[in-house]
Amino acid sequence: MDIIDRAALEERDRHDPLAAFRGEFLLPEGVIYLDGNSLGPLPRKTEAAVQDLITRQWGQHLIQGWVDDGWMELPARIGRQLAPMLGAAQDEVLVCDSTTVSLFKLLGSAVQFNPGRSKILSTKDNFPTNLYTAQGLSALLGGRVRLQTVSEDAIEAALDESIAVLLLTQVNFRTGAMLDIPRLTAAAHRHGALVIWDLSHSSGVLPLHLREWEVDLALGCGYKFLNGGPGAPAFVFIANRLQPGFQNPISGWLGHAAPFDFSPRYQPAPGILRATSGSPPVLSLAALACGVELAAKADLGQVRAKSIALGDLFLKLVAQECAGLDLQPACPTDSALRGSQVSFSHPQGYAIIQALIQRKVIGDFRDPNLLRFGLAPLFLRYVDIWDAVQHLKAVHENREWEAPEFQARKAVT
Amino acid sequence: MDIIDRAALEERDRHDPLAAFRGEFLLPEGVIYLDGNSLGPLPRKTEAAVQDLITRQWGQHLIQGWVDDGWMELPARIGRQLAPMLGAAQDEVLVCDSTTVSLFKLLGSAVQFNPGRSKILSTKDNFPTNLYTAQGLSALLGGRVRLQTVSEDAIEAALDESIAVLLLTQVNFRTGAMLDIPRLTAAAHRHGALVIWDLSHSSGVLPLHLREWEVDLALGCGYKFLNGGPGAPAFVFIANRLQPGFQNPISGWLGHAAPFDFSPRYQPAPGILRATSGSPPVLSLAALACGVELAAKADLGQVRAKSIALGDLFLKLVAQECAGLDLQPACPTDSALRGSQVSFSHPQGYAIIQALIQRKVIGDFRDPNLLRFGLAPLFLRYVDIWDAVQHLKAVHENREWEAPEFQARKAVT
Repeated sequence: MDIIDRAALEERDRHDPLAAFRGEFLLPEGVIYLDGNSLGPLPRKTEAAVQDLITRQWGQHLIQGWVDDGWMELPARIGRQLAPMLGAAQDEVLVCDSTTVSLFKLLGSAVQFNPGRSKILSTKDNFPTNLYTAQGLSALLGGRVRLQTVSEDAIEAALDESIAVLLLTQVNFRTGAMLDIPRLTAAAHRHGALVIWDLSHSSGVLPLHLREWEVDLALGCGYKFLNGGPGAPAFVFIANRLQPGFQNPISGWLGHAAPFDFSPRYQPAPGILRATSGSPPVLSLAALACGVELAAKADLGQVRAKSIALGDLFLKLVAQECAGLDLQPACPTDSALRGSQVSFSHPQGYAIIQALIQRKVIGDFRDPNLLRFGLAPLFLRYVDIWDAVQHLKAVHENREWEAPEFQARKAVT
Repeated sequence: MDIIDRAALEERDRHDPLAAFRGEFLLPEGVIYLDGNSLGPLPRKTEAAVQDLITRQWGQHLIQGWVDDGWMELPARIGRQLAPMLGAAQDEVLVCDSTTVSLFKLLGSAVQFNPGRSKILSTKDNFPTNLYTAQGLSALLGGRVRLQTVSEDAIEAALDESIAVLLLTQVNFRTGAMLDIPRLTAAAHRHGALVIWDLSHSSGVLPLHLREWEVDLALGCGYKFLNGGPGAPAFVFIANRLQPGFQNPISGWLGHAAPFDFSPRYQPAPGILRATSGSPPVLSLAALACGVELAAKADLGQVRAKSIALGDLFLKLVAQECAGLDLQPACPTDSALRGSQVSFSHPQGYAIIQALIQRKVIGDFRDPNLLRFGLAPLFLRYVDIWDAVQHLKAVHENREWEAPEFQARKAVT
């Protein structure tokens, strides 16, 4: 294996077709941010857009902003902007509530599509809120529907005619390992089950083809690679063919066919708008719109190519620079099987992440012993990976993790 | 009845103990805003607070904002600020999702508290999203629980042992008529039913005593009299005594006892935090915090007294200035029975509201023929009521409603 040095990576950054995107973000000085998969950084245009929404639209137009400034259209408008990134039709995507609430809507509707079936099938290591949402729905339904979880390699074997819906996340939040959407979707369909794909770690960094793959329902987070800001609403995807039968369990007035008739009987809006419940958080949507607009400008083929290159580079540099330091790759080394992150295991994983944060290298710790580094190609440079690995090496060489302040656990997202 | 003139009202404004609050809002020039019960205006401090959240907190602190800037605490912190206004304990209130989603959580939990009972009782003229949410829950539960609606004067007669939960709104959104919370709550309890009170048109303008009244569950809108901005999240109130048994049907990771353990099994947080589902919309919460902080500074006794005075004045001035103009009060004339709005019926109600908007007097139309004027005591002056009624008179005298552009319907909230 050739030895990589920093100069070669500087050269590589100079030829990066996505290099100009970095200037579209406001990044703190001196920080290497490898946590864009937890909370994406601030797009340069967001501040002015939210200020305009507050001062001019809300401040000056007051209630008339809902119509005159198009607030009412925001959930579907952002959905239309997201659609090409997802391989969806323009009228298959909507943005309104949190990821958890959005999932509840999809799951609640999915079990109504398949009323004779009793199981939600998912994976043991799915992001926990997916499992919690299924457990909450199960309790609400008095156990009529139950959650069954299996390991990732046992999904297909567990599919049978008892499964109402297969609920999966494309990219594992700990390891970055990717599931095969078209294959598992087809397998579920052979058994008459619907699929719900959680694309929280996918949208904005992985090319997706939801229509081509015949995905039924999907959702994804707005504040990771879409850079929508803390707690940004999630998107939901509902395939056109399912929209006429989609029953939003949280049926509210903005999902009504004629909200301003104030009729006492719920009548769902035609199409994707029926996935709306109450008034969406307009300020948060205005920020999300900026993040989505920026992500939509990038060529997803280039984004994926750079994501793979950054991940491969990270793995190579750890092997080259940190040999013998007890850092084991915990993500697939085959880039075709890996999302836009790398993970390593280390017995001192938590403290190492804290020591790195002290050095302004921001990654994530995930139980039991994983260091997780998100790779956001729109603002990361190849030299950032070099520098991050040098810090990782220094933390090891100096045994910085031994400091008591890094050993004490505190909650981080 | 004494004749009122504008000079007397100017004098009254000079002695208004709440007069200084008007300066805390950024109001558009020349507008008389009588729609603070649809969307409250912009508090002066909101712009800077949201800008700080975006630029300094998100932009500079990135993921660490969740801990270092207290984003994770926002739902409970805003809840604590709201608690005194509601007559609630500090740990009985939480803010996270939209009004509709919040209601779904309360309703879904309420039917689990009373599993042997089959009905949700509400009123025919409740705000429709309340009815829609109950209908959606009923469909999800396969009809195990059904919505029954009665007129407002038939509520007590309809209570029996089949009612799981009584779902009511204190202030009728069309007429402003108030229901008696302590009386109806006690009546429901005598039959073993829980109560959910929708306080969307109450919080911030009516003194509330939820603990004293032994209310079980309640919720209210953040963007009306709390001035939280378009689509601001709602608050939920869960009485302490019910919290241990409260099962959030939308159980998500932020309502977990230990979210960052990423355990596969949902274990609800102790106390009010279990009402959280996914990540809350932090930008929208930052704006809501400003509105709530401002409302919390006002003496609610003074606010209620001024609200009554503004409403009585509006009714008197319409009688004095618009006699013979076919405007009939559609709200209670007894202020003890009226929330913080006045309503009038007129066959040309829709077009009159449009003509008033043209004159920068912003009210609301509500089917079938109601003109609705919200009375927000923190920024309205007595002279504003005088001026609004003069515009109303002029619209009538000039028959301005006949203009074709005012006759054509468009959606407004």
